[in-house]
Amino acid sequence: MRILGIDPGYATIGFGLIEGERAQYRMVTYGAITTPAGLPLSKRLYQIDRDMEELIGQLKPDVISVEELFFNTNITTGIAVAHGRGVLLCAAERCGIPLFEYTPGQVKMAVTGYGKAEKRQVMDMTKRLLKLAKTPRPDDAADALALALCHARSSTSRLPQIKPEKETV
Amino acid sequence: MRILGIDPGYATIGFGLIEGERAQYRMVTYGAITTPAGLPLSKRLYQIDRDMEELIGQLKPDVISVEELFFNTNITTGIAVAHGRGVLLCAAERCGIPLFEYTPGQVKMAVTGYGKAEKRQVMDMTKRLLKLAKTPRPDDAADALALALCHARSSTSRLPQIKPEKETV
Repeated sequence: MRILGIDPGYATIGFGLIEGERAQYRMVTYGAITTPAGLPLSKRLYQIDRDMEELIGQLKPDVISVEELFFNTNITTGIAVAHGRGVLLCAAERCGIPLFEYTPGQVKMAVTGYGKAEKRQVMDMTKRLLKLAKTPRPDDAADALALALCHARSSTSRLPQIKPEKETV
Repeated sequence: MRILGIDPGYATIGFGLIEGERAQYRMVTYGAITTPAGLPLSKRLYQIDRDMEELIGQLKPDVISVEELFFNTNITTGIAVAHGRGVLLCAAERCGIPLFEYTPGQVKMAVTGYGKAEKRQVMDMTKRLLKLAKTPRPDDAADALALALCHARSSTSRLPQIKPEKETV
């Protein structure tokens, strides 16, 4: 199975592809889609849409593992990330790739065995589990590989996708 | 000029098309794109993407006027709306239609002359300005017509699109 991890965003979208079976997975490729800071958000979103479709076409994943959104920090940034994430989910759906979503805590638990692990520990375990010579850069790509590993190491049951609280908007 | 107003969302997306010149605009059509509550968000987003493209293809607007996002209320709903809005902006960009964004205050000011007008007043003025026999339903469609009117009655200078605060995500 080929699992594509996606770390959502609007400026930098990390991706990481792993391939394997059961507990044996190897890293195939990783990197990031980036959009220029000077462009209006709508043009950045359209670029993400095209790049994501192209990436899926090239990498041919069987499933996509994407991070759920959490907002402990900046709400303005969070809203922009949600715009980008909407486009990423839509592109995956258009390409017919099954989507799975994981919280940061689920990723930490699946990769390190501890749900409150530090970012550093997740990166180190990702590197070790995939037998990588160096830590993947940028961080977004490392996060994406961890997301892919999380799906590989989690139960095979399909997680529910985020469900909005109200239906009135 | 044909102006398509869009009230963004993920469950109900209001739209309203007006056509005219200077202060003389007439309503061409209005309505709403809706997505089923039971579907996963990614499938709803993909449906919004297709419906929006089809709508633009049918209505052939010269510009699109879309509401900026504000979150005084529910953050979970806000995040889902931002996912939908991202897909809407992306579809407009893909179709090559220039996008303009307005805050609720700008819409109120442009339509009623008072930036803190009640929703009811905005609806009444929208109905009056467009010489409508009845108040458009659903509310999302009325909001979309008000957005289109706001663009028609605003200065011709292009407003900046929302710019994320940070570039680190």
